[in-house]
Amino acid sequence: MTERLPVVGIVGVGLIGASIGLALRQRGAAAQVVGVDTDPDAVAVARTRGAIDAGGTDLAVLSEADLVVIAVPPDSVIQTAVQTAAVMKRGSILTDVAGTKAAIVRVLDERLPSRVRYIGGHPMAGSEGYGAGMADAALLSGRPFLLTPTAQTDPAAVAVVTTLIEQLGMQPVLMSPDDHDELVAQISHLPYLVAIAAVAASGDRAIGISGPTFGSLLRVARGPVQLWAQISRGNRAALKRALERFRQELDHLERALDGEESLETLLTRSRQRASADRAEE
Amino acid sequence: MTERLPVVGIVGVGLIGASIGLALRQRGAAAQVVGVDTDPDAVAVARTRGAIDAGGTDLAVLSEADLVVIAVPPDSVIQTAVQTAAVMKRGSILTDVAGTKAAIVRVLDERLPSRVRYIGGHPMAGSEGYGAGMADAALLSGRPFLLTPTAQTDPAAVAVVTTLIEQLGMQPVLMSPDDHDELVAQISHLPYLVAIAAVAASGDRAIGISGPTFGSLLRVARGPVQLWAQISRGNRAALKRALERFRQELDHLERALDGEESLETLLTRSRQRASADRAEE
Repeated sequence: MTERLPVVGIVGVGLIGASIGLALRQRGAAAQVVGVDTDPDAVAVARTRGAIDAGGTDLAVLSEADLVVIAVPPDSVIQTAVQTAAVMKRGSILTDVAGTKAAIVRVLDERLPSRVRYIGGHPMAGSEGYGAGMADAALLSGRPFLLTPTAQTDPAAVAVVTTLIEQLGMQPVLMSPDDHDELVAQISHLPYLVAIAAVAASGDRAIGISGPTFGSLLRVARGPVQLWAQISRGNRAALKRALERFRQELDHLERALDGEESLETLLTRSRQRASADRAEE
Repeated sequence: MTERLPVVGIVGVGLIGASIGLALRQRGAAAQVVGVDTDPDAVAVARTRGAIDAGGTDLAVLSEADLVVIAVPPDSVIQTAVQTAAVMKRGSILTDVAGTKAAIVRVLDERLPSRVRYIGGHPMAGSEGYGAGMADAALLSGRPFLLTPTAQTDPAAVAVVTTLIEQLGMQPVLMSPDDHDELVAQISHLPYLVAIAAVAASGDRAIGISGPTFGSLLRVARGPVQLWAQISRGNRAALKRALERFRQELDHLERALDGEESLETLLTRSRQRASADRAEE
């Protein structure tokens, strides 16, 4: 296949969908980008901002799309994907950007018609912002885009979506849907809940006097509530396992504060893990 | 008093001490900045980088200082402050930058000679870095500098240190030593331990695939271990109270994941608190 993608459709031109459109159009990576959203204003904003070439509120405009990205809120992905696939042409490819994968991939692998090739996706990007108005190709740049193929996934479709990801300036990373959900519970969903809890546990004086450490948590806690609520519930089982391990680590730290373990050993271990990450950057 | 400070001494030309020196010298805010460190190499680096005009390893060089900032690790502050005060002239002012205040202020209020006027301080600034080599005036810029006067503190000394803080480009905030320790437990020490626990609880795959949320925690967890161990133990009582409240908030969130409370309500409450902070920025 050529490096230039043919017609790319985006369903849901919110922050992530419109950022994908912007990145594709800014790089001239697709012949055409077509956007669909239930909200006509969102379509208009996406168009004005240059995130899509054309679009509307009717999925029928995606009948000629070669590749469609479902970028609606997590709880709507399955229904939207099924409705979208119904209008898509034979051999076209469907992916999504939901932050949880196992449940979605299991259902879509079963329910999508065989003429549409599906692979689950998850771009590890976001901000405090909402909507096409705050979309920005730079949000995506350099970030991992996780792909979750299964035994049913067509390898050729993986190759096409990998091209899309590279065109977005992102890094494709393949793993199973279950591994994905464990991973994001640890590095995304748990940290979010932890930020929420730390902000809730702070006194009124804390707000307004924050150093760089608390500032990071405040930023995370400003994330969009509905999206995070859906993601957290959607990945409840893995998130509860991550919470359990996190609580055990807190117990270790509290015992170390009481002199029953070496605080330095625990701190050094995490510092080294965190620094290994930086070495890979 | 004039806005330009006379001779300022800095004991401990590490990251914070040398950053203070750099900020003062870059702004021409002091007639002279004199640095002392037990490590002659640190003094040499601070001098080369322009953080001090003169310095050495002997506290005696501070005999003419009008204002001295103790910027050594928290566990060494009391001993270093007592030794430094012994060489300081009548009417001079002493402050420090330790991240915990109640225990230090209580002891220094009692033990320092009356000819030296003391007020506890804590600049809310830092980075992953160590030492004079990574010092940067920009680290301080715009950050709060907490001051913890007591009934014993001379108001004129508070005024002089407030001038110093403003010259550093920082914002002076006054509170009692006890209030300080509760506050920083919530916004600094707890978030640090939480980052350490979250990194420890993550799997090996998590390192290298991080979105913006985990990335913040990784950065916090890369902070200097010895410093954080001393701070955490030094503020153990308040930190354990903050941990207890944090664990209660986690319990609420876990019950909400199980559908026993409204997840949206809890997330919205923290989001609003965190957004109130931004409104004040």
